[in-house]
Amino acid sequence: MFREKIKVLDCTIRDGGLMNKHDFDLRFVRAVYKALSEAGVDYMEIGYKNSRRLFSPKEFGTWKFCDDADIKKAIEGVESKTKISVMVDVDRVDLEDVKPRKDSPVSMVRVASYVKDIDKAIYLVNHFADKGYETTVNIMAISRALDNELTEALEQLEKESKADVIYIVDSNGALYQETTEFLIKKAKSIIKTKEIGFHAHNNQQLAFGNTIEAIIHNANFVDGTVYGLGRAAGNCPLELILGFLKNPKFDIRPVLDLISKEFIPLREKLEWGYVIPYAIAGILDEHPREALALRESDKKENYREFYESLVSDIDK
Amino acid sequence: MFREKIKVLDCTIRDGGLMNKHDFDLRFVRAVYKALSEAGVDYMEIGYKNSRRLFSPKEFGTWKFCDDADIKKAIEGVESKTKISVMVDVDRVDLEDVKPRKDSPVSMVRVASYVKDIDKAIYLVNHFADKGYETTVNIMAISRALDNELTEALEQLEKESKADVIYIVDSNGALYQETTEFLIKKAKSIIKTKEIGFHAHNNQQLAFGNTIEAIIHNANFVDGTVYGLGRAAGNCPLELILGFLKNPKFDIRPVLDLISKEFIPLREKLEWGYVIPYAIAGILDEHPREALALRESDKKENYREFYESLVSDIDK
Repeated sequence: MFREKIKVLDCTIRDGGLMNKHDFDLRFVRAVYKALSEAGVDYMEIGYKNSRRLFSPKEFGTWKFCDDADIKKAIEGVESKTKISVMVDVDRVDLEDVKPRKDSPVSMVRVASYVKDIDKAIYLVNHFADKGYETTVNIMAISRALDNELTEALEQLEKESKADVIYIVDSNGALYQETTEFLIKKAKSIIKTKEIGFHAHNNQQLAFGNTIEAIIHNANFVDGTVYGLGRAAGNCPLELILGFLKNPKFDIRPVLDLISKEFIPLREKLEWGYVIPYAIAGILDEHPREALALRESDKKENYREFYESLVSDIDK
Repeated sequence: MFREKIKVLDCTIRDGGLMNKHDFDLRFVRAVYKALSEAGVDYMEIGYKNSRRLFSPKEFGTWKFCDDADIKKAIEGVESKTKISVMVDVDRVDLEDVKPRKDSPVSMVRVASYVKDIDKAIYLVNHFADKGYETTVNIMAISRALDNELTEALEQLEKESKADVIYIVDSNGALYQETTEFLIKKAKSIIKTKEIGFHAHNNQQLAFGNTIEAIIHNANFVDGTVYGLGRAAGNCPLELILGFLKNPKFDIRPVLDLISKEFIPLREKLEWGYVIPYAIAGILDEHPREALALRESDKKENYREFYESLVSDIDK
């Protein structure tokens, strides 16, 4: 697939940070940035801009807050065309923490929002656009969105927001190709002045397949993470996206090196990827929080009992 | 997806046997058969019918040969509607080893063949059909088949063979959804009197996505393996197929139990699944043999060097 407009955003440190309280050390983050730069990846999302009034720096690592000074330490001295992105959650950001783009190493701010919070998301994204950033709104938990409410949210985003990209986010890893096609086509039918993006979770090993499906139906922003690192089942493996896309600017080899040297050792310490409780959560279209809790318990391999517990929750 | 005609074939012991010289012990094979029977899986492929003149029983386990007596030991006493399948390779079977169906615990014989051997495959499959078996021809390495030769093979299979099902087999794990769609539609356009089947390998985490794609385009036989066990990157995880299909006869829970009790411990001893050298082989549409050799060597995590070696092989 070669379509020059397709942009690849790596969110390894941001989504992966959900598995270690955003506490990657500077050396590791620099290694990721260096490899992504050599690989020709368009954006690297380095973490969240979260309020220190809501979250304690004693409890969370650097990339929960993404101070400009820390970002500069992570990228300085590396030759790169890869732009830096940060994510903002509705109701969790102090706007004064985000300086105007001209004074910041950040190029893009992405606002993550549920459908119900779309008015707040539009307020935020317009604020960041006015500060000069490239911006996106990422609609989370799309598999749980009601169709009429999603329609309204998309119409508002088209009319009222200054976002450059509207992302469809399969938070639960519950989508199959047919639903992915439906949602991307639906978004394209309403969003005429912005690009469509897709962010997948890999609960059912469909993150890459659904990302291809989104590309087929003209999504031009796709998210990946190195070796699929991300919350629970993780995300679409970046290396597979780079193997698939035919744009000659991409080079898979620095990412292969990075996996060899950094991610194989990391996987010994941190669990992510295809693990049956995450697959069960995906099949049942549930948030992975119960599955994550199970994996921390002494019942981590009791899959059947876990399945029954989720099914009976649904029955309630 | 609910279409009553869809049949699920589990080939855990057969394709997984390629990773341990077909040496699963009887207790393990019985546990798999019991779980598949409870799960409502239509067929269980238990191994190969290979000639003892070509392969030594000293070197290979029971399921390389699949004597009727051994199959009977694996299934006796288990209440089941799951039919037993065995696979036969062109040029590797002694026809007298396959008794008439009425005298055998086997219901289905599947003939695996490259396009170039399709005449031999037709001879074999007609022989087994005449002995009373349900039969299939599985066209291997489909991603390397030349289009005109594949057309001719499909035309011959339609006209000359008594096979009930023609399988498209993505041996290299190289297909994306668009090519899967193309190949299934092509097969459907030529094969009018038989069903189409699909067998995937999971090099690029697309085994499940491509299997869904095949189902969308009316393939009615799909292969899976428990926890994806199979050669190299393995196959489409059976548990995901069962989570996807809506036929009420299927029950995912016995398979979840089986994974907990048998496959998590097995994975400690035997490597299969998403491993970067297998992904590289899939991206480059290469047979996994070099990647399998790499994983046995002391360079098992040298991905970049492995990638360069395959690319330069291609250049030769």
